[in-house]
Amino acid sequence: MELEVARPILDLNDRLAAQNRALLDAHGVYVLDLLASPGAGKTSVILATIEQLRERYSIAVIEGDIASDVDAQKIKAQGIPAVQINTGGACHLESQMIRKALDVLNLEQLDLIIIENVGNLVCPTDFYLGENAKVMILSVPEGHDKPLKYPGVFQASDAIILNKVDTLQVFNFDERQFMHDVAQINPRAQIFPVSATGGSGIKTWTQWLAAQIEGAKQEELRSTAV
Amino acid sequence: MELEVARPILDLNDRLAAQNRALLDAHGVYVLDLLASPGAGKTSVILATIEQLRERYSIAVIEGDIASDVDAQKIKAQGIPAVQINTGGACHLESQMIRKALDVLNLEQLDLIIIENVGNLVCPTDFYLGENAKVMILSVPEGHDKPLKYPGVFQASDAIILNKVDTLQVFNFDERQFMHDVAQINPRAQIFPVSATGGSGIKTWTQWLAAQIEGAKQEELRSTAV
Repeated sequence: MELEVARPILDLNDRLAAQNRALLDAHGVYVLDLLASPGAGKTSVILATIEQLRERYSIAVIEGDIASDVDAQKIKAQGIPAVQINTGGACHLESQMIRKALDVLNLEQLDLIIIENVGNLVCPTDFYLGENAKVMILSVPEGHDKPLKYPGVFQASDAIILNKVDTLQVFNFDERQFMHDVAQINPRAQIFPVSATGGSGIKTWTQWLAAQIEGAKQEELRSTAV
Repeated sequence: MELEVARPILDLNDRLAAQNRALLDAHGVYVLDLLASPGAGKTSVILATIEQLRERYSIAVIEGDIASDVDAQKIKAQGIPAVQINTGGACHLESQMIRKALDVLNLEQLDLIIIENVGNLVCPTDFYLGENAKVMILSVPEGHDKPLKYPGVFQASDAIILNKVDTLQVFNFDERQFMHDVAQINPRAQIFPVSATGGSGIKTWTQWLAAQIEGAKQEELRSTAV
């Protein structure tokens, strides 16, 4: 029942997402949509990513939350432009919200926009926002059985960050089982074990992200040339 | 837009929830709806609760998941009846799903049904299922700022379990700030710090739950007498 009702919303969302994509392409901006449960460490991963890439790229962040602007404040404290979207109850961001955020950002000057979606492993999965890639974060304390329980988001993700790996022992997290289950569900996704606050693994993750950004630029040059 | 579309679903859901409630009242069954993010420890809290209360009450569990039946298997391994509901994508349980689960449980013999809702801090909040109480679990690794970011679920909860308190130091979780913020948002909710796997705090939590069950029984006796 719910899925039937949701269909027109998704169609409208996809149309607006395509418009977002065209706008972003026109300015050569790469967009990363970051998905995770509450508390998995989205903001910490973003801060660590900014630290690694800010010399190379001009970055902005769009923060999606049910309420509050604590995350946007943390980003702005680093001197990075941040737009806060409060969904007021909705469990995901939609394309029209992203469009409003794009309208207040200086797209001319940006290379990379990171969208921190609402903390949720379910709702944001089906909503294309015009991003280049969806990346999800699972944190070790959530447990290694999550790919089996939330296959949708693992399938939809171009890469998977396993955060808080410094607590693998504390939580008896079976990393081998996790890697195996992810490979079954989504063999194309790369997995990056990191500790966003400790710093381990961040370099490998940001190298991948930089390679994606460069790849998108090449792609764009080629399509402009043709 | 989304909220308008959701209204008829919620109305239908509430009607069916009232029917669930009448059915449960007729059999004197207390129902607890347990909400939390993925990996907060819902199943572990349920297992610890069963261990404390199984001598006193006849218990069954309804497991809500997007996919898989790993949680129901864990419950059944304890000799407790468990019904698995796979929502196939939906981020919350609805009253009609609960009704189907009630139909396969032996209500005559039950005192307590624990519903493990889909791992999500947003969607299940608005859906009344016919339960006596909603209780949410926040786990320490998710961070102390969650009441500010997800006020809806904290407001909707009759009690709040703070799980994994053995990791307070590891995650720099500010318990005082957390208690303060919850008190602002929902002053009536009691907070139970526990370690579901370690056992600390479980007795206090289950004493509260037993008191609620007894209270509901008294209430029922009074209404039958009148």
